[in-house]
Amino acid sequence: MKALVLQALHQPLSFVPDYPEPEQINNHRIVRLNYAAINRRDIWIQKGQYAHIRVPVILGSDGSGWLDDKPVIINPGFNWGNKESHQGENFSILGMPLNGTFAEQVSVPENNIYPLPNHLSLKEGAALPLAGVTAWRALFTRGRITPKDRVLITGIGGGVAHLVMKFALAVGAQVSVTSSKDEYLERALKQGCYSMANYKEKDWAGVLKSKVNSFDLIVDSAGGAAYTSLVKLLDFGGRLVSYGGTTGVIPALSPQIIFWKQLNLLGSTMGSPKDFEDMLDFVRKHEIVPEIGDTFPLSQGQTAFEQAELGGHRKIVLEI
Amino acid sequence: MKALVLQALHQPLSFVPDYPEPEQINNHRIVRLNYAAINRRDIWIQKGQYAHIRVPVILGSDGSGWLDDKPVIINPGFNWGNKESHQGENFSILGMPLNGTFAEQVSVPENNIYPLPNHLSLKEGAALPLAGVTAWRALFTRGRITPKDRVLITGIGGGVAHLVMKFALAVGAQVSVTSSKDEYLERALKQGCYSMANYKEKDWAGVLKSKVNSFDLIVDSAGGAAYTSLVKLLDFGGRLVSYGGTTGVIPALSPQIIFWKQLNLLGSTMGSPKDFEDMLDFVRKHEIVPEIGDTFPLSQGQTAFEQAELGGHRKIVLEI
Repeated sequence: MKALVLQALHQPLSFVPDYPEPEQINNHRIVRLNYAAINRRDIWIQKGQYAHIRVPVILGSDGSGWLDDKPVIINPGFNWGNKESHQGENFSILGMPLNGTFAEQVSVPENNIYPLPNHLSLKEGAALPLAGVTAWRALFTRGRITPKDRVLITGIGGGVAHLVMKFALAVGAQVSVTSSKDEYLERALKQGCYSMANYKEKDWAGVLKSKVNSFDLIVDSAGGAAYTSLVKLLDFGGRLVSYGGTTGVIPALSPQIIFWKQLNLLGSTMGSPKDFEDMLDFVRKHEIVPEIGDTFPLSQGQTAFEQAELGGHRKIVLEI
Repeated sequence: MKALVLQALHQPLSFVPDYPEPEQINNHRIVRLNYAAINRRDIWIQKGQYAHIRVPVILGSDGSGWLDDKPVIINPGFNWGNKESHQGENFSILGMPLNGTFAEQVSVPENNIYPLPNHLSLKEGAALPLAGVTAWRALFTRGRITPKDRVLITGIGGGVAHLVMKFALAVGAQVSVTSSKDEYLERALKQGCYSMANYKEKDWAGVLKSKVNSFDLIVDSAGGAAYTSLVKLLDFGGRLVSYGGTTGVIPALSPQIIFWKQLNLLGSTMGSPKDFEDMLDFVRKHEIVPEIGDTFPLSQGQTAFEQAELGGHRKIVLEI
């Protein structure tokens, strides 16, 4: 079968026209893929920024295609474990160590295969799973969003952040956003957000404070020095959910603010099977559509990766 | 009436033999006090380490005595507000701004007056309210302790920490403790704790890790650099509840640990009326007794304050 293979770290992806087809394993089914979507995780693995990387491997956590005669998408989280509060020791994500979706076929546990929501095309469906379940868990399971919440979402140019925004708007919450790019901020306002701040500006936190005063819920993937400002923007009883840490260590945090305001500083990673199913129900009910950017044929996988690395909330898709 | 009065900040307390008796206010009742207990809050107010201090004032959040012919204790939290998640804007604590328990009589809202638990003496009852409700909320409402939890309590020499320990042992959890004093650590082991570490030792966190590996729940009142180590000691899905910050700013925190381990870093302050009632039920059921240190007559209040400032988990009591 055709496959896009990472042969060695720090190397371009190789298009292999005759990669061996996956073998049938117990409890697994073979999905014939039409589309796959690229996530930051794939790029980070290529750059060697993950622990326990094995090569060669077919990357790719997101995909859509056919199981027998039914259009399907795949939940890329395996072996979550028996606790809703966190993933167990054997948790893994499709596309490393197990071969992923950048190929004509992928073998996945039958329980991880779900019908494509009716309102989505196969191409749109491919862009939903990993970002969707990550956004869902951060906002709902961990953040416990309510329609009355004043919500702040940082880095709205990101794919997960963008889905967090769509979910929060669908709930009916008041949503504010940050980004380094005015273009992303303006678009978010048009899509229904209430206020915004460009975090390249020195007093971005002051801008938000003057508009919203304080937030009930903040969803962040950056960490770093800005996290300290986010904590100060929380109202009493507020929740700050982190699903990433792209700007690194948080350099200072006041325990007085944490205990006096009775804050909740929470971490969130990916999502459980229940999170995935709840996310799908919500996406169906509100007919939420992930936004798609450029589409590349599988043979141009490396070019697609370079495009995805430029960022933006629109998923880069591989057509298989 | 006799009263211990803070006339001005940074001044010794004055014993006043003829302070005006409190007037009857709507919804308030007058409790005739037999005992009062000293909290760190009283000492901090004397030192001017609180916002919006008014003087002269009768300090004291904890007290026990008689309402008509019934022995009673007082919930020192007023106007918590209508949310269990946090205190409202009008929340205050007995003993500043309202006159407190270091006097023969105190006027408090009728709803804040509770029967003295049968297993406690009036003297013991005076030592329970503020520390008890603070310990309860941190451990149960915020920390959601279960009997299966491996629990770590820092600074076990403190009055609240000591009650957190007694509550956690009564639940049946595995309890570990830290302190700067070996004497406190040895005593905690005798009282049923599982392991301990002296945080004056450089590798105190390594000592705990070698004994317990990781914790489900940590209750802390220090913050500071040790907080970073506490976060690393948490298991996946772990909870760290802060009810104080005596060692100041947390200098570094990894967002990667927060999100990957799906941690819960939580703040806790005092407690709601529901917390207070739940705490009393638990204390009655498990016949928990707060530990009492030296007792001083009200006229020796300043000496009692100096004794209380030396620390230790045993409450210094004023006899009125």
